[in-house]
Amino acid sequence: LDKPDLSDVRSDLQRIRDSLRETYNLDSAKFSFELLSRLPEVLRDSGWKVALTLWKDKIIDVEASDAIDEVYGVAVDIGTSKIIGYLTDLKSGKLLEVCFIENPQISYGEDVISRITYASENVENLRRLHKVLIEGINKVISRLCIKAKCRARNIYEVTVVGNTVMHHLFLSLSTKFLGLSPYVPVVSEPINVEARELSLKVNPSANVHVLPVIAGFVGADAVADIIATGIHKSDELSMVVDIGTNTEVILGNKESIMASSCASGPAFEGAHIKCGMKAVTGAIERLTIDPKTLEVTYKTIGGSPPVGLCGSAVIDCIAELFKAGIIDRGGRMMDQDMHDKIRMVDSDREFVLVRKGEDGAKRDIVITQRDVREIQLAKSAIYTGCYILMKRMKVRPEDVEKCYVAGAFGNYLNLTNAKLIGMLPDLSPDKIEFVGNAAGAGARMALVSKSVREEAAEVARKVEYVELALDPDFQLEFASAMYLPHRDVNRFPSLKDLV
Amino acid sequence: LDKPDLSDVRSDLQRIRDSLRETYNLDSAKFSFELLSRLPEVLRDSGWKVALTLWKDKIIDVEASDAIDEVYGVAVDIGTSKIIGYLTDLKSGKLLEVCFIENPQISYGEDVISRITYASENVENLRRLHKVLIEGINKVISRLCIKAKCRARNIYEVTVVGNTVMHHLFLSLSTKFLGLSPYVPVVSEPINVEARELSLKVNPSANVHVLPVIAGFVGADAVADIIATGIHKSDELSMVVDIGTNTEVILGNKESIMASSCASGPAFEGAHIKCGMKAVTGAIERLTIDPKTLEVTYKTIGGSPPVGLCGSAVIDCIAELFKAGIIDRGGRMMDQDMHDKIRMVDSDREFVLVRKGEDGAKRDIVITQRDVREIQLAKSAIYTGCYILMKRMKVRPEDVEKCYVAGAFGNYLNLTNAKLIGMLPDLSPDKIEFVGNAAGAGARMALVSKSVREEAAEVARKVEYVELALDPDFQLEFASAMYLPHRDVNRFPSLKDLV
Repeated sequence: LDKPDLSDVRSDLQRIRDSLRETYNLDSAKFSFELLSRLPEVLRDSGWKVALTLWKDKIIDVEASDAIDEVYGVAVDIGTSKIIGYLTDLKSGKLLEVCFIENPQISYGEDVISRITYASENVENLRRLHKVLIEGINKVISRLCIKAKCRARNIYEVTVVGNTVMHHLFLSLSTKFLGLSPYVPVVSEPINVEARELSLKVNPSANVHVLPVIAGFVGADAVADIIATGIHKSDELSMVVDIGTNTEVILGNKESIMASSCASGPAFEGAHIKCGMKAVTGAIERLTIDPKTLEVTYKTIGGSPPVGLCGSAVIDCIAELFKAGIIDRGGRMMDQDMHDKIRMVDSDREFVLVRKGEDGAKRDIVITQRDVREIQLAKSAIYTGCYILMKRMKVRPEDVEKCYVAGAFGNYLNLTNAKLIGMLPDLSPDKIEFVGNAAGAGARMALVSKSVREEAAEVARKVEYVELALDPDFQLEFASAMYLPHRDVNRFPSLKDLV
Repeated sequence: LDKPDLSDVRSDLQRIRDSLRETYNLDSAKFSFELLSRLPEVLRDSGWKVALTLWKDKIIDVEASDAIDEVYGVAVDIGTSKIIGYLTDLKSGKLLEVCFIENPQISYGEDVISRITYASENVENLRRLHKVLIEGINKVISRLCIKAKCRARNIYEVTVVGNTVMHHLFLSLSTKFLGLSPYVPVVSEPINVEARELSLKVNPSANVHVLPVIAGFVGADAVADIIATGIHKSDELSMVVDIGTNTEVILGNKESIMASSCASGPAFEGAHIKCGMKAVTGAIERLTIDPKTLEVTYKTIGGSPPVGLCGSAVIDCIAELFKAGIIDRGGRMMDQDMHDKIRMVDSDREFVLVRKGEDGAKRDIVITQRDVREIQLAKSAIYTGCYILMKRMKVRPEDVEKCYVAGAFGNYLNLTNAKLIGMLPDLSPDKIEFVGNAAGAGARMALVSKSVREEAAEVARKVEYVELALDPDFQLEFASAMYLPHRDVNRFPSLKDLV
């Protein structure tokens, strides 16, 4: 830029505009109001050599041109239990770092219903849930920046996914009517808002793109699941099952898609399970039980001494105990006099998987009768969701060409065991694919692509929401699905030999 | 709006959008993010009958449709010494109330230079000046609302004018470089910003339109002066003199316009004058002195007992004393032995206009030798501004077809006296028109008209700024103009008989 003198007293902004017009033929760039206050110093400190960052037609940052040219974005997946952030280099599209923390809202309730209840009591509670969520996300962002050695003010773009309750709490919107029939969200379309309006600690003018939601109980995470798996563009009839505290079930192809949500509880994330834990270092992530000797073989995350069971191991555990005859089709565990690994503690029966001291374990790692009941409830909810959606679309299991299973199971999920306990319909194993955190993957895709955002908006408009509880078969289906794998063994022809 | 039920679970916002599309063919209305948080309650409390307020294509308010349909705007004129607010009914365009307060920044310096100095010391000082200004404006708005019995959240539009320093401080922009050659503003174009970004206490989504500035010392108030007098659309060669702590002088017509600013000080606003005061109740606003008896006849604002002299009376006073021979062309006051109304107080000579007790006066009201010097400086600055601008445009006094004099003189200004003391060039009295607060009038015009805003932007781009101090004749001209009316009496042919 030319320096101003008494014969050229154009304003600082005008000088930038004129240069943009002359050099880039850019005529109508908007200027973020917040930047104006920094503009005069930056121009003069840099000797009138500056680099601008634009978002669409808006200038959102001005730096000295010799400042390193860093442009980052963060995709955020707000789960009911976990907040995950993905730091991305926006120029190369490369994923730089991943980081997660427990959702700090957990101290106000473990599931979405209890948080809705808390937030609906008064507006201060709503604001508090919003605030702790923002603080949590800021913590994730700050850790990402430390790990990648980058400055938060060079983060210019944020995408956010989450279920509708997380979505509303992130935006400080009332969740009260999400908890009351007919469960209407305040807004379903995608939202773009400047970071400073939400006090997110990135560049204050960064655009925060919140992906659209489908319905009160099928959120932006489901939209991201669809985007990540691409079922909305595929000819194949596909199913997506995203397992979490709420499990989203999605079925369809490029013609039409139905989606639903079931309250499967946090069992598969390790919560409400006596020795359950998240998929972090020390968690047993897979295990087998010898049906004759009941010898337990297992693998922990990071190869560390075993600390507890994460979701994938919990599934293995139920399946293996079932195959070994330790639990029956109704989920009842055998008496303690059957085997010395079975014992009574606090009037609950439990099976000892790892004894204290073994492989460095600091306590006995067990699975209890109560744990089995918890898993039965969870898997029954998921199966029922899949079943009712298939029924609505008039689809038989053999018609489903692909089934994507997503969830926070670390890197491992034994899909055969998941089917064996009846969590998933009886599909051929080659049709089933574990895709990890699909919602996060969708958020990352939206972070770097405008067309993906348009696709997501289109998906959210087109997907049909199915309210499971309204289905006349729901109660009966749910009860029947409590069995392992199901009361009606004909539903699982491939497992007939085992059962 | 239709109520949602389980067969129609569109989001609250979608429901509004669909209705806007169906009823008003409005397809792409944006929604203020801030409103979303109020939306669900308003919809349900109103029984799904709501009224929307739109600004351009953005929905900025939602209220129950039986709420009274009130839509207000406020035009704000930020003077160096005074903040004036004009509350307007945006539907009828009617002016409802006017209110002003002293600019609370005065405790940080009386003129713009001292405020620039204070604000440049550190960023906290800048923020403080910004904050007290916003608080001042909020006070004006709150008083307007009380007087008009309206709610601040029904104010949806604000326009703001002020000199460039007030403009920058209002927007929290650095004023440092306004005080350093070449006096470059950060931004000169019009700014639109949401009220909540500035913490203005009106509807948080209200648009605040800040009129453009011309240069570091010719601000949005000058733009508003031009708009209000219409000289940019006229064939007539016109002059505008807007008298304040800084006086703007503008000369031109629809072909071209030049503008300049002179530091005339606050004397004409009653400050720095021993018995000076603002044009409020009790201020003497006009006076005559019998040249033979030295009998003083005067009129106060509101007809109240006299308290002091406002700007218009100060001008009268100098002119009348000059005509009576009490002060000479150099501004020197006669000795105290000349007349018993002249006396020495604190080694300053003074002329007693009103004695304590007379007409209920609580003190002697006087004009001092020092006051006369102050006025001479002020009027000399203004005249020099007019003269240099005319010289630059190669214009003689007789070529000027119209002269608008603006300023905070209450409702009265004796233009003949203003010319007699040499504040204005020697123009025929029928060419001179006192227009009161033209900047405020321009702000009010911009409040209700989009095309006026476009005109203002155009004016700010086209007007040529003249830096008086750079003119080689400036010092000499200034010194010559200290005389009454001028050292060179040929400049005032119409006054030759008097002088």
